[in-house]
Amino acid sequence: MSLIVVGSVAYDGVETPHGKVDRMLGGAATYISLAASYFTKVGIVAVVGDDFAKEDTDLLAGHGVDLEGLERVPGKTFFWAGKYTPDMNDRETLQTDLNVFADFNPKLPASYRNAPYLLMGNIQPRLQAGVRSQMKKVRLAGGDTMNFWIKDFREELLATIRGWDFLLINDGEARMLSGHDNLRKAASTILGMGPHTLVIKRGEYGAMLFRQNSYFTVPGYLLETVFDPTGAGDCFAGGFIGYLAQQGFDLEKDHISRGELSRAVIYGSVMGSFCCEQFGVERFRTLKRAEIDARFEEFRTFTSF
Amino acid sequence: MSLIVVGSVAYDGVETPHGKVDRMLGGAATYISLAASYFTKVGIVAVVGDDFAKEDTDLLAGHGVDLEGLERVPGKTFFWAGKYTPDMNDRETLQTDLNVFADFNPKLPASYRNAPYLLMGNIQPRLQAGVRSQMKKVRLAGGDTMNFWIKDFREELLATIRGWDFLLINDGEARMLSGHDNLRKAASTILGMGPHTLVIKRGEYGAMLFRQNSYFTVPGYLLETVFDPTGAGDCFAGGFIGYLAQQGFDLEKDHISRGELSRAVIYGSVMGSFCCEQFGVERFRTLKRAEIDARFEEFRTFTSF
Repeated sequence: MSLIVVGSVAYDGVETPHGKVDRMLGGAATYISLAASYFTKVGIVAVVGDDFAKEDTDLLAGHGVDLEGLERVPGKTFFWAGKYTPDMNDRETLQTDLNVFADFNPKLPASYRNAPYLLMGNIQPRLQAGVRSQMKKVRLAGGDTMNFWIKDFREELLATIRGWDFLLINDGEARMLSGHDNLRKAASTILGMGPHTLVIKRGEYGAMLFRQNSYFTVPGYLLETVFDPTGAGDCFAGGFIGYLAQQGFDLEKDHISRGELSRAVIYGSVMGSFCCEQFGVERFRTLKRAEIDARFEEFRTFTSF
Repeated sequence: MSLIVVGSVAYDGVETPHGKVDRMLGGAATYISLAASYFTKVGIVAVVGDDFAKEDTDLLAGHGVDLEGLERVPGKTFFWAGKYTPDMNDRETLQTDLNVFADFNPKLPASYRNAPYLLMGNIQPRLQAGVRSQMKKVRLAGGDTMNFWIKDFREELLATIRGWDFLLINDGEARMLSGHDNLRKAASTILGMGPHTLVIKRGEYGAMLFRQNSYFTVPGYLLETVFDPTGAGDCFAGGFIGYLAQQGFDLEKDHISRGELSRAVIYGSVMGSFCCEQFGVERFRTLKRAEIDARFEEFRTFTSF
């Protein structure tokens, strides 16, 4: 196993201006794993209920995702429903049923514990810390968080990310975590909290990578139609860590190439853009690696001067 | 004369989270001319009242801007006052006194009429059309517009821009003009209205350049502090057309290099970013061309992968 992904596997109900799906496969770990699977061998750590459908495990397995860490327990799978605003830059949560996810306590199979790469989706910081401590030979570990943990679990979160190599959050979260509106100042503050690499995701506006004395930014990919942005940020994370895992870096803080990290941000952007082209995980049923590399080159074309 | 700039010269009152200035030099033609003056010889066409201060004409003249087209009439100079929201992405207009600008009817001095480049700031479309018709040997003409003209003077505006080479507007205006929320669709529609080149400005999020079968985009420059965004879009326009004028292109629709247009977008972004560093036009009192070129190279550094 190369990359371990921890987080939620869920069913989602989503409404966008382009349509409505009452129940479909979702969850951060699902999106991260599917996106990363195009680059590296992924093991997923998550919990589902006994309602979890065979076709959904089949989709993950079909992408080579190892399912030994996918715990199945009595009860229902985590369910979330939301509705997007007309411009799709914001969304309203209509329903959150934690179900079996409420008692999620990630246990890593022995075969996962020596994996070199770790991506922790947005879950309770204490659980993220527990996962990190089970991994013995990690070269590069990082993850995501959200406003809820930043606001109400700040100390736990700070203790957790202190040992991370990278943090992947959106601009609003970066402002909240740092206390600065200006993103340059926000980044500088966050880089003092532990992670040596910070990626700030800005949805349709692109992404930024910050390190000490180094900065990279890329605009968003301009889609003709955004069907459903659900999971795009997680697919970004999957593309980012997946690409780095594929390169097989033996990463020490001072020896990560800015060039490779920049290209990881582009692959993240590419995966996020594909995610939006269809509802839920649908795009991943047909997506081929050649399309991913073609879009990477497209990014180069429309940003070069 | 290489570049003719037409638009407002005004006094502005501006309040941002960083301070408040009751009255300072402003106006689209002022910002465009100052920004473009670092690249090419500019002639300005505008009207001011008899209250217009010598130090303000001196600032323009000190940048080599020709003032033969700056008409001075009895009455007061156009005055505008506004207050920015805390994140500075929006602003509220507090006062608009058109004063002598209400009867502005741009008359081009004979020495301006053979200039090869023309930038029309945001004024009544009929006046823009009148200016265009006075220019006999234009190689590249274009300009800006705003929501008011798009909404209430649509037919006049469409007739006016039909003969333009380029249109420079922000994303909200592009959506309003085209009737499409999606910017790719919006751009495609607008490129059918006449201009062969469309630049969409997105403030802190950067800018996009669209042509038939060609697309370029750049993220915004990340400033440590945005003191005052007033005039940033106009400075973008000045940097864009100023750079193209400096290159001296003999532009026919099919022979404009995408590379040079992309670099013009970068110079526009550079000039817009400098504009925000101090209140009003203050930054232009000290700005040197070498700083501009250094920031251009900085753009290359933080967008290359």
